[in-house]
Amino acid sequence: MIKVFGHKSPDTDSTGSPIIWAWYLSEVKGTPAKAVLLGEPNTEALYVLNRWGLEKPEIIADVSADDTCVIVDTNNPAELPPSVNDAKVLEVIDHHLLTGGIKTKTPINVTIRPLACTATIMHDLMGDATDRMPDAIRGAMLSCILSDTLEFRSPTTTDHDRDLALKLAAQLGIDIPSYAAEMFEAKSDISAFGDAELLRMDSKEYEVAGTQFRVSVLETTAPRLVLDRKDSLMATMPAVAAEDGAHQVLLFVVDILREEATLLVPNELVKTIAEKSFGVPVTGDTVVLPGIMSRKKQIIPALTL
Amino acid sequence: MIKVFGHKSPDTDSTGSPIIWAWYLSEVKGTPAKAVLLGEPNTEALYVLNRWGLEKPEIIADVSADDTCVIVDTNNPAELPPSVNDAKVLEVIDHHLLTGGIKTKTPINVTIRPLACTATIMHDLMGDATDRMPDAIRGAMLSCILSDTLEFRSPTTTDHDRDLALKLAAQLGIDIPSYAAEMFEAKSDISAFGDAELLRMDSKEYEVAGTQFRVSVLETTAPRLVLDRKDSLMATMPAVAAEDGAHQVLLFVVDILREEATLLVPNELVKTIAEKSFGVPVTGDTVVLPGIMSRKKQIIPALTL
Repeated sequence: MIKVFGHKSPDTDSTGSPIIWAWYLSEVKGTPAKAVLLGEPNTEALYVLNRWGLEKPEIIADVSADDTCVIVDTNNPAELPPSVNDAKVLEVIDHHLLTGGIKTKTPINVTIRPLACTATIMHDLMGDATDRMPDAIRGAMLSCILSDTLEFRSPTTTDHDRDLALKLAAQLGIDIPSYAAEMFEAKSDISAFGDAELLRMDSKEYEVAGTQFRVSVLETTAPRLVLDRKDSLMATMPAVAAEDGAHQVLLFVVDILREEATLLVPNELVKTIAEKSFGVPVTGDTVVLPGIMSRKKQIIPALTL
Repeated sequence: MIKVFGHKSPDTDSTGSPIIWAWYLSEVKGTPAKAVLLGEPNTEALYVLNRWGLEKPEIIADVSADDTCVIVDTNNPAELPPSVNDAKVLEVIDHHLLTGGIKTKTPINVTIRPLACTATIMHDLMGDATDRMPDAIRGAMLSCILSDTLEFRSPTTTDHDRDLALKLAAQLGIDIPSYAAEMFEAKSDISAFGDAELLRMDSKEYEVAGTQFRVSVLETTAPRLVLDRKDSLMATMPAVAAEDGAHQVLLFVVDILREEATLLVPNELVKTIAEKSFGVPVTGDTVVLPGIMSRKKQIIPALTL
């Protein structure tokens, strides 16, 4: 049984894409496969699973040399099971920058495209088999695109992602604005999470000038719920960074509706990063970055020290 | 002007594929591109260029941060310009195992497929634009496939590579057996090369149990021409290994027609590798490995210490 998984902080794309690809491998290609998760899905992903009647995939801690795997929505070993390079990786489908970490013993299929969403790439790879997708798989695909594009607001959005989402929504009879609003509402409910959980919820390790950062993003339609907790979030940053082998956590609170990010500024280091990377003056312990919505397209390429 | 290049030891695929893709980018996509080489093409590649009236691409030593590039037929930084990670890499098209070395600042197109030949992947990516390929580009594509599959003898050959080669040959009015024989004859003429050049001609760095090897392959229809020089080749191995930062050179002389490889065995280390990796007893300073033709599919996955 092939295990299909995304990264360790399962958002909607990293939860939905494994389900989509496992369906394709099992039902179309005839190679039994199942989606698994490397962590608890976020509240938006849980909402999507529930909305489309999809079972929550099993959460696994690691893989072994006996496992055959397909990796989706990441190519970064830091976001994958510790033993991923021991397993037999069959394929990688992703839309992130190359981190240069996955090694294989034989040539495999790798498809990385600068699209907003892994599920869009899967649609392209499936060809005519997309006609056979049941509604739940179609719904997962639509949800992945709406999530990763923040309903087409993110600058990562391509015409191709948008056209596919519109087509899927029409096929499913879904009204995109109201469905996306429900998804984002689910994601914005952070009441159940502690500060450390919030800092790690949607977080990627990234090195800037030799220093390791945890670049965390919280996309929300209710930024006040996060910013009201900024003091305790900042107080928790040193412990989270130390535990995860990073020097500093950078938390960007993305306001989906106002299309801007607020960066928490706990110290001089982050102040310097904010000023150098985004050309903004910083006075207090937060700074608003107008138009910044995408870690991949706007934050990571800009980060400098 | 986008620079399209393959690896540092340009064989037919690594010479032809950049030419094919530069044609596609320039003539179909409207993004000016040119093929360049990272070294002198081998005698087969020179024969192919001449046969199809293609200009020999410029040889470059490095790239800079000002360059935009497409990398084909490798994903291994050791086989690429020293400053490749400074340049703007737009795309990678390859059919080798993942070495995990290329890093990018933003998501790019990566297409790796377990096919015999990079040119076959390019054909798939081009879609209907293949109808517009001039004969010289078609000829380069056919030559890449015949070279990488050793005229369909190599176990790397897939039905997809074979079908495409047959189609191209029919379109061009080429008789595959006689054309392939001319290509292999060109490759087998090693008279102009010194021992160090032969050891580096088609060579890849590979680590086995923490030790770095230069895994060199010479594909030939006249193995005697190489084996007659085995003493001086073995005597040259230590200097080549030392200069290239490897511990040992492994030279596999692949007899295309007999479909077997002869490994030179200069010392106890290589004797152990041969016995452990291929399960053959070794007595003299060479050992014949029946059926072994592909470094990628047979040699690299088997190597053990």
